[in-house]
Amino acid sequence: MSASSDTAAHVETQNISFPELVELLRQVFLRNGTSPEVASVLAENCASAERDGSHSHGIFRIPGYLSSLASGWVDGKAVPKVEDVGAAFTRVDAANGFAQPALAAARPLLVEKAKSAGIAILAIRSSHHFAALWPDVEPFAREGLVALSVVNSMTCVVPHGAQRPLFGTNPIAFAAPRAGGDPIVFDLATSAIANGDVQIAARKGAMLPPGMGVDRAGLPTEDPKAILDGGALLPFGGYKGSALSMMVELLAAGLTGGNFSFEFDWSKHPGAQTPWTGQLFIVIDPNKGSGQNFAERSEELVRRMHDVGQERMPGDRRYLQRAKALVHGIDIPVAELTRLRELAGVQG
Amino acid sequence: MSASSDTAAHVETQNISFPELVELLRQVFLRNGTSPEVASVLAENCASAERDGSHSHGIFRIPGYLSSLASGWVDGKAVPKVEDVGAAFTRVDAANGFAQPALAAARPLLVEKAKSAGIAILAIRSSHHFAALWPDVEPFAREGLVALSVVNSMTCVVPHGAQRPLFGTNPIAFAAPRAGGDPIVFDLATSAIANGDVQIAARKGAMLPPGMGVDRAGLPTEDPKAILDGGALLPFGGYKGSALSMMVELLAAGLTGGNFSFEFDWSKHPGAQTPWTGQLFIVIDPNKGSGQNFAERSEELVRRMHDVGQERMPGDRRYLQRAKALVHGIDIPVAELTRLRELAGVQG
Repeated sequence: MSASSDTAAHVETQNISFPELVELLRQVFLRNGTSPEVASVLAENCASAERDGSHSHGIFRIPGYLSSLASGWVDGKAVPKVEDVGAAFTRVDAANGFAQPALAAARPLLVEKAKSAGIAILAIRSSHHFAALWPDVEPFAREGLVALSVVNSMTCVVPHGAQRPLFGTNPIAFAAPRAGGDPIVFDLATSAIANGDVQIAARKGAMLPPGMGVDRAGLPTEDPKAILDGGALLPFGGYKGSALSMMVELLAAGLTGGNFSFEFDWSKHPGAQTPWTGQLFIVIDPNKGSGQNFAERSEELVRRMHDVGQERMPGDRRYLQRAKALVHGIDIPVAELTRLRELAGVQG
Repeated sequence: MSASSDTAAHVETQNISFPELVELLRQVFLRNGTSPEVASVLAENCASAERDGSHSHGIFRIPGYLSSLASGWVDGKAVPKVEDVGAAFTRVDAANGFAQPALAAARPLLVEKAKSAGIAILAIRSSHHFAALWPDVEPFAREGLVALSVVNSMTCVVPHGAQRPLFGTNPIAFAAPRAGGDPIVFDLATSAIANGDVQIAARKGAMLPPGMGVDRAGLPTEDPKAILDGGALLPFGGYKGSALSMMVELLAAGLTGGNFSFEFDWSKHPGAQTPWTGQLFIVIDPNKGSGQNFAERSEELVRRMHDVGQERMPGDRRYLQRAKALVHGIDIPVAELTRLRELAGVQG
């Protein structure tokens, strides 16, 4: 580790390696109510987001995780129950625990089914997802598989044409292998903006672009604080994004047996922040698709996208940050690192 | 049939029943180079779009179908070859024919696999899709299944951040059963506007809303003629719609073995209008999803969408038109009906 200072914002930072950050976060989770299995999965996930520059899903989320655990809303020691219900269908009851350990428990069976049947589905229910979605799908593409995942969250998005919020931010993530580089991966909220980015803007005192949300009276606003204070988000892309958000509710909750975004009541758990819903995965083995090599075909698409002037592929910014972190480590504000060490019970 | 005149636009129309329109279009296709099997499938598809008010995919498309057939670009008598490649994976080589007969040929196997394995995929390659996508998915939902389909078309959309077009309009269609009414069905182009709607606006001399497309110089335009004359469309919803359009290329072409939207060359077939690409289906049996009844869960979602003020569900406008047509028949301009009868070789 080395100390430095961010001259632009005058925030003193300290440098930490990725493995050090994973271990620190693992200790934080372990000391705050999770099992060793859950602590390992969440620490890896959260540290990956921080490393890749997904700051709204990095260590920024730790207070939310911990207050949710402390409130008794989510079970940090839940043991997911994997159910094999068909040649291409796996279910998991996450038992009121986090979604990522449920995925980890079912993953070997899901991959085996996808490779033998050609496509497979994983339906996770009674799960809490409080992270970015891309870490869930990227590893499938690194194994040569194509993966799609959707997860619903909590009511904060007004359906197109409606007056009041109903949907969650309901992201869709997709990953596909390519022959000449890192997988093609996107992770997009079907809301016009992600909740985490609204929170970060509010913290900074920054305004948002128009079209992102409404205030508590249902009127358009560019003030993130007005959105968070009883307002709501809008779907991206008008009625189309709204239709996709509805699809996410149907797949991630309706089909899995999880809660819709409007169904759970956390009012008796002050501090609870993690949506108690469901998550769906569809994983395809592209080797069954045709006589052609899929990864070479996707590489050809990327090449042509560059040719017409698209310089950055979805995922590229994360890969760049990741490569930097591998060499230089991750810079974290000293105050945040100190707080994490306190939470982990380790000396600074 | 009965004759009437549309007083608003002073276009004289004639009334025809849905079965009469299907039969008329079947004769048109039969007399213009298709096999009886292909004629039946395309006639039903095209008449359904006209009946449901999807005018940009109804009889408006007939000249495009016929000029493509006449050019030798598409094989109207192709016999699709169905390949069973896994417990949940079916492929079809459409053999340079239309996509809908390929779907019809593979559909029984696809449904059987979805019901036994829980999910199944259908990868159609070397196919021409020149129709709306919702007629492909709606019937699955009427059987209690959840269906998703994507199809790529021809280069006409500029990827977000790029300078020149590459993607097709690349629609995504989704259908899910609901207990209390017609299935929830949406069919959305990942372009900001569908090609057919640009053509219809150009025909009418109407302008488009901003953000739909660019002219041949790559500059934003609201003139549909400028878009059609060497210009291009934009994706819906900025980088998010663009990412989804890319996903459609990867699934509908990369995975199936079909052509990407930029790969086929129809310059030696003047009159060719049908994109020679691929199409992907994912069909899920929601009965394997949880202990709950999916159709009742989706009905609950619809009820809540109505509660927050969304009056019209995706698909409702089509169902309303369909119900009207069942009672009153379909009004078609006399000039168009006369032309169809000439093409069918029948007396008016």
